[in-house]
Amino acid sequence: MSIEQTIAELSPFLGDRLAQSKSELEHHGQSESYFPATLPDAVAYPESAAEVSRILQTCNRLGCPVTGWGAGTSLEGHALAVRGGIVVDFSRMNRLLAVNAEDMDCVVQPGMTREALNTELRATGLFFPVDPGANATLGGMAATRASGTTTVRYGSMRDNVTGLEVVLADGRIVRTGSRARKSASGYDLTRLFVGSEGTLGLITELTLRLHGQPEATRAAVCAFDSMAGAVETVIETVQTGIPVARIEFVDQTVAQIFNARSNAGFPEKPHLLVEFRGTDASVAEDTARFAEIAASHGAEGFRWAERTEERTALWEMRHNFAYTLKAHYPGRRFVFTDVCVPISRLAETVEETRADIEASGIPGPIVGHVGDGNFHSSLAVDETNPDDMRVAKELAHRMAERALRYGGTVTGEHGIGLGKLAYMEEEHGAAWAVMGDIKRTFDPKNILNPGKLVPPTD
Amino acid sequence: MSIEQTIAELSPFLGDRLAQSKSELEHHGQSESYFPATLPDAVAYPESAAEVSRILQTCNRLGCPVTGWGAGTSLEGHALAVRGGIVVDFSRMNRLLAVNAEDMDCVVQPGMTREALNTELRATGLFFPVDPGANATLGGMAATRASGTTTVRYGSMRDNVTGLEVVLADGRIVRTGSRARKSASGYDLTRLFVGSEGTLGLITELTLRLHGQPEATRAAVCAFDSMAGAVETVIETVQTGIPVARIEFVDQTVAQIFNARSNAGFPEKPHLLVEFRGTDASVAEDTARFAEIAASHGAEGFRWAERTEERTALWEMRHNFAYTLKAHYPGRRFVFTDVCVPISRLAETVEETRADIEASGIPGPIVGHVGDGNFHSSLAVDETNPDDMRVAKELAHRMAERALRYGGTVTGEHGIGLGKLAYMEEEHGAAWAVMGDIKRTFDPKNILNPGKLVPPTD
Repeated sequence: MSIEQTIAELSPFLGDRLAQSKSELEHHGQSESYFPATLPDAVAYPESAAEVSRILQTCNRLGCPVTGWGAGTSLEGHALAVRGGIVVDFSRMNRLLAVNAEDMDCVVQPGMTREALNTELRATGLFFPVDPGANATLGGMAATRASGTTTVRYGSMRDNVTGLEVVLADGRIVRTGSRARKSASGYDLTRLFVGSEGTLGLITELTLRLHGQPEATRAAVCAFDSMAGAVETVIETVQTGIPVARIEFVDQTVAQIFNARSNAGFPEKPHLLVEFRGTDASVAEDTARFAEIAASHGAEGFRWAERTEERTALWEMRHNFAYTLKAHYPGRRFVFTDVCVPISRLAETVEETRADIEASGIPGPIVGHVGDGNFHSSLAVDETNPDDMRVAKELAHRMAERALRYGGTVTGEHGIGLGKLAYMEEEHGAAWAVMGDIKRTFDPKNILNPGKLVPPTD
Repeated sequence: MSIEQTIAELSPFLGDRLAQSKSELEHHGQSESYFPATLPDAVAYPESAAEVSRILQTCNRLGCPVTGWGAGTSLEGHALAVRGGIVVDFSRMNRLLAVNAEDMDCVVQPGMTREALNTELRATGLFFPVDPGANATLGGMAATRASGTTTVRYGSMRDNVTGLEVVLADGRIVRTGSRARKSASGYDLTRLFVGSEGTLGLITELTLRLHGQPEATRAAVCAFDSMAGAVETVIETVQTGIPVARIEFVDQTVAQIFNARSNAGFPEKPHLLVEFRGTDASVAEDTARFAEIAASHGAEGFRWAERTEERTALWEMRHNFAYTLKAHYPGRRFVFTDVCVPISRLAETVEETRADIEASGIPGPIVGHVGDGNFHSSLAVDETNPDDMRVAKELAHRMAERALRYGGTVTGEHGIGLGKLAYMEEEHGAAWAVMGDIKRTFDPKNILNPGKLVPPTD
């Protein structure tokens, strides 16, 4: 067997750092979402790009599947080794290698988490903005093109990764990009790897763009009678050029959950949560302009959170929403799904989705990065009810189809993984075959995260 | 001959829109820079993606080279058909197809110029920000990953193209991206085509991101005793988070030329030209903060241009610099070259470059998009002096080598074309071969802009 032989060859080289214990395999065989566990055959813990190269050379020669692993926080099962083989866990490659404050960039290893990076950066006055909620690793975030609440202001991983070191399927180590802020030199390989979900190579180093900590921050929350009022507020805010740092939508179900969990006292209506960053004066001006726009679209119940503690409480509620949900619906399994549409179609997409979820009887609160047209529903499946999982998957299916019908994408930030593979052809048409051609060029033996992202070949 | 047969097959199909007159071939055989003219065999003027597809199917079957043509404003000879064949001129595909004001995007054909687009957008309150100086076509700007003075605030073509329609070498028409603001769905083919210089496909439609016209704009110029003071001002401005819309460096030679051409009365020193955009209040605050930072680094001779006419005069000087130069050095031929380095290395890179140019005796003013670490030198070659062109090319060569030594790229925005091909291996190492692999996958017969960007195969 090729997998067995790969393990036999790698074992003397990696020693203890090639794990095969049941607990190790189980830990790396599960996900944070609804996918069935699929165990790899072994877990490797490399400490350098050279070791990753040697692992891949061996796997490539013997045809053994290889799947990268960061923090295991993917919601679409990206890191599940559906064909077994070796999982490469980057937790021993988790260092900050350089901070260049004048250039506002840094160099990290892929196993470093975004929170660990921001802790290390604290004294520099700089921070890394991309924030998908979970404390994911930066390598995993790049591989899945992660984004989050601050993307409306600072962009996603697409915008904040300026260069990579990647080990290709055959073990070659390549560098993409440079530390220059921009370049017109050659194909944009950096952005080809960002979002490739481990199917084209394994990332072993990242150069990341940093941003200056703002002098002042102010957050607010307000309620609307309808989704349409909230979306019109967002459109006008963005068109006016107010540099909002975050602008998040939560629906009435979320307001109910916030009230139940923390006596927040929110009206049971759709809400916008917003944050402004800048100088004292600019934040004061931005908040006043936003309040005026919001009021003209029917906003009420404004609450301003200027002090750090208030702001933290407000954002923690939103930010830890996935964990709040799990506490609120104990014992349930969740189908977390997201789509992204042009913002002009957002109100109707959310309203149709809400109506569909309500008719199903499954609890499914909706939250959204509304400045990007991106929203999530979290379907709380009761596994003691034999129909629930099927119904939840059908809801998620109709949500994806609705997004495509309105000119959007089946995922704004969760990625394709296992959950969205069925939509690739419909979303991309003839371009999906082109992705398959690229995959074959990079990985002719199909060892890198096989069974994901591209058209099946075997 | 395959080229002759291609022309024979396309001629009945395209009729008048396949031109072979001497004047047509000459017009499409020259560039705005120092490269020798190279005539194509025919120029095709398609009117739809379907026609482009039929042209490419024929060329692919017969192995005939195909080179895209926008406005012919490239400075590195991208659009020169160095192996002859068909030039595809997109001037008959120059329409604005849709403006979606709520989504702040639009859909255009590739032959539309950026100025024509902004004229059409005037009534919407929106504009397209990427501005390479020349009135280039949007298709050409995407193909070369163009950027310009406003990139520090709004990004380059990489950031402002959200989707494409592309005809592949074999005639397949594919769509990349969507109108959603972000997506985690599949390989980022949009950014693979952006900057591919016509070697992977021909762009037949673009979806572009638009931005809101600011309420207030204010510009300023100030002088520094040294390049270092100017660069330190820029670094501190960006780190502080002042959202500068433009921040441009011009050296003392440029100040002399401005004075000579328009009695500008600038001190003959390095200058920064800056522009702020926002509300009246935010612009006032930003300018005050910038002035304080600049003064702390030795800035003097501040001039503020608040009125539109003053501002226009200031920026036109910078903006039309290439044309000003041609008037200032009549009869000279120019080697325009650009590099981009990490901003922490910018002062020394510019100063070494200036010293090198001064020692050569060739006039070579330097201007830079200093917020990006990107600068240009414009070497005014006297062709009656037999050594001048060789010396200018040597200066450009040392500038490229210097940029690589300082961790930068050989071109921030002009692109590779003919002028920078020799540096691809040094800049990209093993990744250059990967680019060659991608090229072969997309264009196995090497018909698309052959002889450019990737390692030579034939």
